[in-house]
Amino acid sequence: MTQTSAQLKEPFIFFFSKEQTDGEASMRNQLGGKGANLAEMSKLGIPVPPGFTISTEVCAAFTANNQKLPEKLKQGVMDSVKKVEAQLNKEFGSSNNPLLFSVRSGARVSMPGMMDTILNLGLNDETVEGLAKVSDNARFAWDSYRRFLQMYSNVVMGMNASFLEVVLEDMKADQGYIEDSELTTKDLQELVEKFKQIILETTGETFPLDPYEQLWGAISAVFLSWDSDRAKTYRKLHSIPADWGTAVNVQSMVFGNLGEDSATGVAFTRNPSTGEKLFYGEYLINAQGEDVVAGIRTPQAISKASAANTEHRSLEEMMPKAYQELVDIYHKLEAHYKDMQDIEFTIEREKLWMLQTRTGKRTAKAAIRIALDMLDEKLISEQEALLRVQPEYLDQLLHPTLDPNAKKTKLTKGLPASPGAASGKVVFDSKEAEEAKANGEKVILVRVETSPEDIAGMVASQGILTSRGGMTSHAAVVARGMGKACVAGCAEAEVDYRKEELRIRSYVIKKGEEITIDGGTGEVFLGAVGTVAPALDERFHRFMQMADKYRSMRVRTNADTAKDAQQARDFGAEGIGLCRTEHMFFAPERIDEVRKMILAESAEERKAALQNLLPMQKQDFLSLFETMQDLPVTIRLLDPPLHEFLPHNEEELLEMAPRLGVPADKLRQKVKSLYEFNPMLGHRGCRLAITYPEIYLMQARAIAEATAEAVKKGMHLVPEIMIPLVATKKELELLRNDVELEIRQVQKETDTKFDYLIGTMIELPRAALTADEIATCADFFSFGTNDLTQTGIGLSRDDAGKFLGSYINMGVFEKDPFVSIDQNGVGHLVRMGVELGRKRKENLKCGVCGEHGGDPSSIDFFQRVGLDYISCSPYRVPIARLAAAQAAILNKGVGN
Amino acid sequence: MTQTSAQLKEPFIFFFSKEQTDGEASMRNQLGGKGANLAEMSKLGIPVPPGFTISTEVCAAFTANNQKLPEKLKQGVMDSVKKVEAQLNKEFGSSNNPLLFSVRSGARVSMPGMMDTILNLGLNDETVEGLAKVSDNARFAWDSYRRFLQMYSNVVMGMNASFLEVVLEDMKADQGYIEDSELTTKDLQELVEKFKQIILETTGETFPLDPYEQLWGAISAVFLSWDSDRAKTYRKLHSIPADWGTAVNVQSMVFGNLGEDSATGVAFTRNPSTGEKLFYGEYLINAQGEDVVAGIRTPQAISKASAANTEHRSLEEMMPKAYQELVDIYHKLEAHYKDMQDIEFTIEREKLWMLQTRTGKRTAKAAIRIALDMLDEKLISEQEALLRVQPEYLDQLLHPTLDPNAKKTKLTKGLPASPGAASGKVVFDSKEAEEAKANGEKVILVRVETSPEDIAGMVASQGILTSRGGMTSHAAVVARGMGKACVAGCAEAEVDYRKEELRIRSYVIKKGEEITIDGGTGEVFLGAVGTVAPALDERFHRFMQMADKYRSMRVRTNADTAKDAQQARDFGAEGIGLCRTEHMFFAPERIDEVRKMILAESAEERKAALQNLLPMQKQDFLSLFETMQDLPVTIRLLDPPLHEFLPHNEEELLEMAPRLGVPADKLRQKVKSLYEFNPMLGHRGCRLAITYPEIYLMQARAIAEATAEAVKKGMHLVPEIMIPLVATKKELELLRNDVELEIRQVQKETDTKFDYLIGTMIELPRAALTADEIATCADFFSFGTNDLTQTGIGLSRDDAGKFLGSYINMGVFEKDPFVSIDQNGVGHLVRMGVELGRKRKENLKCGVCGEHGGDPSSIDFFQRVGLDYISCSPYRVPIARLAAAQAAILNKGVGN
Repeated sequence: MTQTSAQLKEPFIFFFSKEQTDGEASMRNQLGGKGANLAEMSKLGIPVPPGFTISTEVCAAFTANNQKLPEKLKQGVMDSVKKVEAQLNKEFGSSNNPLLFSVRSGARVSMPGMMDTILNLGLNDETVEGLAKVSDNARFAWDSYRRFLQMYSNVVMGMNASFLEVVLEDMKADQGYIEDSELTTKDLQELVEKFKQIILETTGETFPLDPYEQLWGAISAVFLSWDSDRAKTYRKLHSIPADWGTAVNVQSMVFGNLGEDSATGVAFTRNPSTGEKLFYGEYLINAQGEDVVAGIRTPQAISKASAANTEHRSLEEMMPKAYQELVDIYHKLEAHYKDMQDIEFTIEREKLWMLQTRTGKRTAKAAIRIALDMLDEKLISEQEALLRVQPEYLDQLLHPTLDPNAKKTKLTKGLPASPGAASGKVVFDSKEAEEAKANGEKVILVRVETSPEDIAGMVASQGILTSRGGMTSHAAVVARGMGKACVAGCAEAEVDYRKEELRIRSYVIKKGEEITIDGGTGEVFLGAVGTVAPALDERFHRFMQMADKYRSMRVRTNADTAKDAQQARDFGAEGIGLCRTEHMFFAPERIDEVRKMILAESAEERKAALQNLLPMQKQDFLSLFETMQDLPVTIRLLDPPLHEFLPHNEEELLEMAPRLGVPADKLRQKVKSLYEFNPMLGHRGCRLAITYPEIYLMQARAIAEATAEAVKKGMHLVPEIMIPLVATKKELELLRNDVELEIRQVQKETDTKFDYLIGTMIELPRAALTADEIATCADFFSFGTNDLTQTGIGLSRDDAGKFLGSYINMGVFEKDPFVSIDQNGVGHLVRMGVELGRKRKENLKCGVCGEHGGDPSSIDFFQRVGLDYISCSPYRVPIARLAAAQAAILNKGVGN
Repeated sequence: MTQTSAQLKEPFIFFFSKEQTDGEASMRNQLGGKGANLAEMSKLGIPVPPGFTISTEVCAAFTANNQKLPEKLKQGVMDSVKKVEAQLNKEFGSSNNPLLFSVRSGARVSMPGMMDTILNLGLNDETVEGLAKVSDNARFAWDSYRRFLQMYSNVVMGMNASFLEVVLEDMKADQGYIEDSELTTKDLQELVEKFKQIILETTGETFPLDPYEQLWGAISAVFLSWDSDRAKTYRKLHSIPADWGTAVNVQSMVFGNLGEDSATGVAFTRNPSTGEKLFYGEYLINAQGEDVVAGIRTPQAISKASAANTEHRSLEEMMPKAYQELVDIYHKLEAHYKDMQDIEFTIEREKLWMLQTRTGKRTAKAAIRIALDMLDEKLISEQEALLRVQPEYLDQLLHPTLDPNAKKTKLTKGLPASPGAASGKVVFDSKEAEEAKANGEKVILVRVETSPEDIAGMVASQGILTSRGGMTSHAAVVARGMGKACVAGCAEAEVDYRKEELRIRSYVIKKGEEITIDGGTGEVFLGAVGTVAPALDERFHRFMQMADKYRSMRVRTNADTAKDAQQARDFGAEGIGLCRTEHMFFAPERIDEVRKMILAESAEERKAALQNLLPMQKQDFLSLFETMQDLPVTIRLLDPPLHEFLPHNEEELLEMAPRLGVPADKLRQKVKSLYEFNPMLGHRGCRLAITYPEIYLMQARAIAEATAEAVKKGMHLVPEIMIPLVATKKELELLRNDVELEIRQVQKETDTKFDYLIGTMIELPRAALTADEIATCADFFSFGTNDLTQTGIGLSRDDAGKFLGSYINMGVFEKDPFVSIDQNGVGHLVRMGVELGRKRKENLKCGVCGEHGGDPSSIDFFQRVGLDYISCSPYRVPIARLAAAQAAILNKGVGN
């Protein structure tokens, strides 16, 4: 992919100016983002200081040429400089009317770590006099010169910036100055001399006075910065190919700091926070671009409307002509780019110059409003409007979020286990959480891990913080189900139950003291940080309904309770894709019955204990059916290993044994006998049902009885029963047979008829690999991509935290494979599963119920694979709806 | 696959006799094994009592016909009966000279659970008189009749056999008899009447006196037995399709119990224990076949030579004419079948009749000798000779085995973790094992589980018994490496360290008492059971060398020490396919250094600890290289999670902390921080090296320094470095780069040059799925099918014991997938891995180093997939060599 100098193909320099512009916005790959937009603006007749862009392809030629600029390039640059001189009637290197340049890098995508900017290039001992003359401002000229020396020696010559800063500070101290602006022309002249001397002493090289030599140095520095360590690391992280290269933008300088008739500013064409159609920006009189950002002086609002509440005067009032020109330009740009723009401008002696335009960043709320407004303005189509909002951003709208303006003391960061922000007093015990709730107090439940015993405490809390466990830990899963904020696996948090304190680094938080957690980022803060409540407005609903029009995949939800199911319906879920029956088993009033079932010593005893659970399970299902009405409900039969229901330590055990009426020794023996080295790969899922058929029979009966009752009430219901952890056709065949017999029995007993589906999770590689065999016994497939990721990559989600971070940093995984499906590996298994399954059963219904069902880029993949539906937690339903619409739009004609 | 009566296609009855024989040996599928061989013998002119076989296809027709015999069949049977009558000049149902039949089932493969035999069919109140007349023996006739009543009522009419036995016993008691033979003709006549009465009362049906009715009943009973629960279960277990069906053999009766001129016997054409070419068998004068087997009378040797040492007289002496005829027949049969035969015969009044011939079972030793002898006799080719020996049987020859004649008291059965038999005194502690060894005592180390601390104790023991852990538990893996007997996961064994006793059911074995374990079967016996030592004779070596001629796959070994490597070379290994470096780390004098490395708080500290391990590792590799000389050696870099090296309980921890010079709290903290929920899927293998690069760098250096030293000694060596648990190309790319830099550094330091290969284990589904990507960075692939099975099926080998048994019983898995590769699922991943890898690199070397590398049916699969080599534990090398030869012969033209 490299090319030598000889291979440097014309054109490699693209000029932009009022008279001649070679490039345009679509040439981003060659010109970089900045260069392409400068060309586009020039083309549109918008005033842009003339200049030229050296194409990204030259970057490779530079590397191939031993990191030297090809002669052919130099000749081209000199020709282009001449053209700029002619247009501006200035001369590069002139001591009368000197032309100065800025030199900036610009890759296809914005990329930190690369050289940013060199300003005022072309200044030397002679041209500085010329600049003084034409600006009629000697101090300005010499100040520009000393800034240039500092920038150039650091960026191009690689000198430590502090060496020159020290000299500047010494000078100010000697003279008794506070601000740089107190330096006189003479001071500055003296500094310039000193700077040149120090540069020579430090680098062993003379500071180049020849403007072209300066230019070659700056261009080379841009290219070299493409291969800097920081840039390489960034590319690795973002999978940016090294051969893309960077462009170099060489542009004539304009000055916003030539006096009271000059100014500089940045603006958004609409309000980036609210989306309101209002020109929104800030400017400073007599200043350079960096001053607006630096925050030393307070910038002023551009338009009268937005300046209404401030004492400052707007640009509209101060420079009405330039303002009007700016407004015209912003209208032109929006109409042209059909999106909200983020622009930079400079006014030099009342003349407006545009320095940059790009698509502006915005909040979710603003994104929706801007998309809908532009649709109504007929600027964009519905499809375009839908593609304008990043689905992930919707999350901001669904949970309370931390007030961005609040002051925060960050303590540590754990896993962002369940989004939302929550503040409360720290409690270490679930019972105390319940008591506090009863007293009207808000608490955060802090535990090493949570267990089924903590459910009530979790319900009573604002949020949950655990020091151990991963994204699928009990705390995380249950919290997400509840839509409650949770930070899990917070390794730095030391939980001391005995002393009732939470220690994080040097902080010690005692019981009753407040903390705040942000489950969307995993951050933990000291004290109560203010939050902002969510509000779903009319625009949100209109936008989501538009998304639904374009989707081909159905969006279901993972919900285990009627409350979750209702929440998901409110968010637009079209069914339940995964109801985890074990969460019903964990409920406090039931778990002891489950334990009795586990401790049973015969099939008969087991059946008796299950008999007690039957009416509760039946009621669970009935209320789910009633909530979902005629929407499909997929119920997964018991999945976790039985030891999850037993005590986890001696203390719990001793407390539990008398309650269950069994000797502690027997309970201890049972715990021991159920111990597993790798529970993830152990005796769970359908494996339990093969050895203890009674469990699934009870569940099948509960589903059938609930369905019969619903059917008698007039509902139209086709329950979908899902058998987990199937690895072989035989397992499904045996269990399907058991379940069907039980359902038919119930139908006979209740004298009802109803259809039902029996399907399976595809969550083991072997199941995906033999999906053609398994399909013969399955009415549907639901891909359990959580476990498929764990087994396919051999990666325990609960343990991977220790190294997953470095894995992502080092580029082993592009993204966390538990968040976004590993398309090449695990995704390949999904694809095989769908293809093999449908080879045997043409219309086999296929869906996904792993966490990936709520991840936009995974959803795009599932669209391409041809899934019928995706299922995700209630709070991700809107995200999934939008992502599915985008996937359908973007992959039209691909897949199904 | 079913066919109705109408579809019954001719011919469905196959006659066999001197005059007419319709079938032959090759028609096993239609005639079943027994029927096909009866036909073949008849064809060869060997005297076989005439009869006919109803084909297996009728079995399906019978089922389709509502379990009734099709009329067309009945007609065919009657015609065939007429033919037998004509040939023998007897009449079915005659009261003068009655023809009697035996009716036997016979499927393609011998199948327990199906109806065996009904003898003397055709007897009734009239024909019994005829039989008395022609036999001139009324008692014999009536005794045959009462036996027939007993057999028929039980097998055909489904009556409980004890109902008639009780009557017989009562009669004997009344008369004061001890033996059945004391019953008089009158007694027997009385019994027959009583039997008929009881049959009527119990079953409600009259015993059928009509001979044809008897025959229809018996034939139906055979077909019905094909669908008995026991037969179904057996079919499930052995994957025998239900539609194969069984044949029915109807054969005229001959009697060996008609007096002193009659006899019956069984014989092998060669000695089945030693393989010696010597006619070998036993017979009884005046007896029926079942008497030889029943053991009431002691059978006598057939030939003079084999009877030499007994006081009994041989058939050769007693009936020289019949004997000579038998010898002629056995020569004919061996020449014809070209294999050692197991035959049954009856002599009725000096006339010899053959009742059965089939390939005889034999020991491994005999199998080799017979194969080689027959090759030398030019009866069979080399390929045929090789296919004659089941590879698994070789295991008998490689380990001491329990004396088959010893008296044993079996206590329980665990997992057959490492083959071999061993006896010794029970010890519960490794130190005591070492002391006992020093005192010259033989001990069996009994532990709940073993840990690295037990290595010395294991070395000092004859064998190891653990109550917990699976086939890859520490005990199992280490024992196999040592070639030491081990029974693991023995759930019934309760190990009480405190009381120093081993409790198994009601047995309590105290420390110092003896037990015996058989690691090949998993059995545990009380006391010391005598063993037989292995002896590899000339024939063994000749046979194995012949196997090597035909193999296309190389056979390597999994060995971690020079001792294991030497053992494997002695068994014919052609290199090391897997050297697990962690086993070197577990050595007692090193493990503390490893622990210091783990406890290090910085890369520098870690490097310092590793520095101490470096010279030891280097020496390990050097001695392996020296043992293997120029054969390839594949070294796997560190694989297990670090917590495996840390203490497993508080006691160990408190003992270890002062020795390591760290506070107990720090050690405890480390153990806690390294804890994993699913270590199998955790921070191990190359994941360790990505986070702690120093470990692999030390190992790479040790390998390189050892290679440099070996090269300087004149060896030609290409070390193969294997990086474990790779899931993505990136991991291998990063680590390959690290390792290569270190090797080049050593080459520079030592001024040596040598080639090396860097490859990877393919042991995760993702690696197999993306093998094309990974191949770009790999010089070879070694399939780690143990872990690939665990992740591919989602099945923890250490935990699966709880349900794998029922899974195999229920036919979910045909075989234990950890013993024999799951070809459809896990095997598919191996196939994909090879194909994708070679798509990118045409000649990519691919091997396997999981336990499956020593399993014959897996080896056949690997041959078909096109692997270059297989690697297995030293004691399985001969098995693998033979299995590879057989696979090459059987799959000629398939795969590579």
